[in-house]
Amino acid sequence: MADTLHLAADPVELTAALVDVPSVSGDEADIADLVERSLREQTSLEVVRSGNAVLARTTLGLPRRVILAGHLDTVPVNDNLPSRLEDGVLHGLGTCDMKGGVAVMLNLAATTDDPRYDLTFVFYDCEEVEAVRNGLGRIERELRQWLDADLAIVCEPSNAAVEAGCQGTMRIELRTSGTRAHTARGWMGVNAIHAVGEALGRLEAYQARTVDIDGCVYREGLQAVKIAGGVAGNVVPDECVLTVNHRFAPDRTPEQAEQHLREVFEGFDFTVTDRSAGALPGLHTEAAQELVRAAGGTPVAKLGWTDVARFAALGMPAVNFGPGDPTLAHTRQENVPVNQIQQCREVLRRFLNHG
Amino acid sequence: MADTLHLAADPVELTAALVDVPSVSGDEADIADLVERSLREQTSLEVVRSGNAVLARTTLGLPRRVILAGHLDTVPVNDNLPSRLEDGVLHGLGTCDMKGGVAVMLNLAATTDDPRYDLTFVFYDCEEVEAVRNGLGRIERELRQWLDADLAIVCEPSNAAVEAGCQGTMRIELRTSGTRAHTARGWMGVNAIHAVGEALGRLEAYQARTVDIDGCVYREGLQAVKIAGGVAGNVVPDECVLTVNHRFAPDRTPEQAEQHLREVFEGFDFTVTDRSAGALPGLHTEAAQELVRAAGGTPVAKLGWTDVARFAALGMPAVNFGPGDPTLAHTRQENVPVNQIQQCREVLRRFLNHG
Repeated sequence: MADTLHLAADPVELTAALVDVPSVSGDEADIADLVERSLREQTSLEVVRSGNAVLARTTLGLPRRVILAGHLDTVPVNDNLPSRLEDGVLHGLGTCDMKGGVAVMLNLAATTDDPRYDLTFVFYDCEEVEAVRNGLGRIERELRQWLDADLAIVCEPSNAAVEAGCQGTMRIELRTSGTRAHTARGWMGVNAIHAVGEALGRLEAYQARTVDIDGCVYREGLQAVKIAGGVAGNVVPDECVLTVNHRFAPDRTPEQAEQHLREVFEGFDFTVTDRSAGALPGLHTEAAQELVRAAGGTPVAKLGWTDVARFAALGMPAVNFGPGDPTLAHTRQENVPVNQIQQCREVLRRFLNHG
Repeated sequence: MADTLHLAADPVELTAALVDVPSVSGDEADIADLVERSLREQTSLEVVRSGNAVLARTTLGLPRRVILAGHLDTVPVNDNLPSRLEDGVLHGLGTCDMKGGVAVMLNLAATTDDPRYDLTFVFYDCEEVEAVRNGLGRIERELRQWLDADLAIVCEPSNAAVEAGCQGTMRIELRTSGTRAHTARGWMGVNAIHAVGEALGRLEAYQARTVDIDGCVYREGLQAVKIAGGVAGNVVPDECVLTVNHRFAPDRTPEQAEQHLREVFEGFDFTVTDRSAGALPGLHTEAAQELVRAAGGTPVAKLGWTDVARFAALGMPAVNFGPGDPTLAHTRQENVPVNQIQQCREVLRRFLNHG
């Protein structure tokens, strides 16, 4: 491993160099050290370290500030290291999720000489694991003032398109109850598994909303993700638990989404086991409009839940914008087209610098 | 533990003595030794030992033969030993299932001096565990000629009523399949849990048959006993497995019962994982009619599956007739009313002896 990275060089080579420093969640010390040393060579930046996160910012006194954020960790190695460049595509763990985006950020940190905005770069740890360990959450608790800005760009893979906002997610456990009996005398019992059939029927018939916000189209969903019930092979079961995942457009709060589910599952008991608010796209703000213009395309809705929602909750518009196909994330085959890395760097350079 | 039991004495005391020799399935050596020693004192009987089963028979050359059968084992101890007599009710593990019946059999073996039938007594092991270990199955394989008779009486608890025949049982695994997808893009998948809702709907609407055979009324059943599906909290599941238990009247063979389920679940795939034929009551035979008359009541249908079906499969009518409430079997509170033990002994004495 090199002592420092040559941040101003080709971001594709930079991506490969980052991929070749393994950084599975919880094991990001090496890559954080490398990123920190490399950023400290940039005399124009104020740099702080927080655990295995590294933050850097300009302090030019400009009226507006943009955050660029990306996580340093990856999911576990799956026989897909080191990186390998082939026919214009860089293969390997983290190429797509999200060292291509991190490389673009590092390159911009070293090459943005005449910015229109003050810039804050956030490289953080433990995004791929349970939310309580997420480095961005720790930064929010410990370095809150570093997260003030007019726009946040999370460089997660988005096929180099501006993906705005994100949907909320909620999980519920719907529980039916009955009365046990021997199946030889089944009529003496009440079958809790039979009772869940009605809830499944409502799921099958459910018409999910499609919601247009700021030109971004969010397509909701309501899916059973788990079902479990049964006592023994000769017993009428007295309980069945159905777990349902609801993805809801950011025009609804989690409270409104829960209320909706109370209506859908009227007559059934359920508890909410997990919920995360969505994020409105916020594309009407000036900084966001400028980014959309620089990207030159039509922004699209982000459907999955990402850390964009954390920034949105802090009161700023937040978008995903990064190289790579998000559907390849977490697959053994993950890769990133080199031209998307270059395109993201160009779009962001155009956006961040004075014409 | 006494060296031998006084078989000709009070069958209630005999029941208590048997209960006080623990004999959880697989651990019947002590009780089998005791039963064997006690039976060998009866010089009129031919006795053989098979593992932890003991068989005894008369060889009087009578034109007809009746088998009396009972298992020596119990389910595991549940803080319900030793036996305890209180207000005419004997409490304790095995009182109901089925040492009361075994005591009646042993008493009859020692006291039936002028029988109308040759008699075969079968005391066997491992009835309360998986069918492959069942001692009666072993006897069928190794001592087949001991199981020839004109009527079999299994002295399982039946509230001292003649319970005739038994229902068949069949378990199926019904499997739905789908296509995995991230729940944020649920419409790209096909939800296998939703698909099982239709099958549950048919179960909920199912109208079970009630079938009258020889005056015995069998009430069928179709019950989901287990359901399992799900991959992860954010994945549209691609498989769900529903286990269903069908109890069918003995006018249907297992093949006919399966054909019926193919019609009920048309459009679904399922496999049969377990099946046991029922047993027709066979009450039209002469020996059975004589037993019914001796019992003096109306015979009723046996709903659960018992070893009666093994005897029926060997070509003879077979009934349950024994002291105790079958719904108390396998409960910590199991018990047997003393007067049912006495009643069973009297009915069988009347039936087996010349007037």
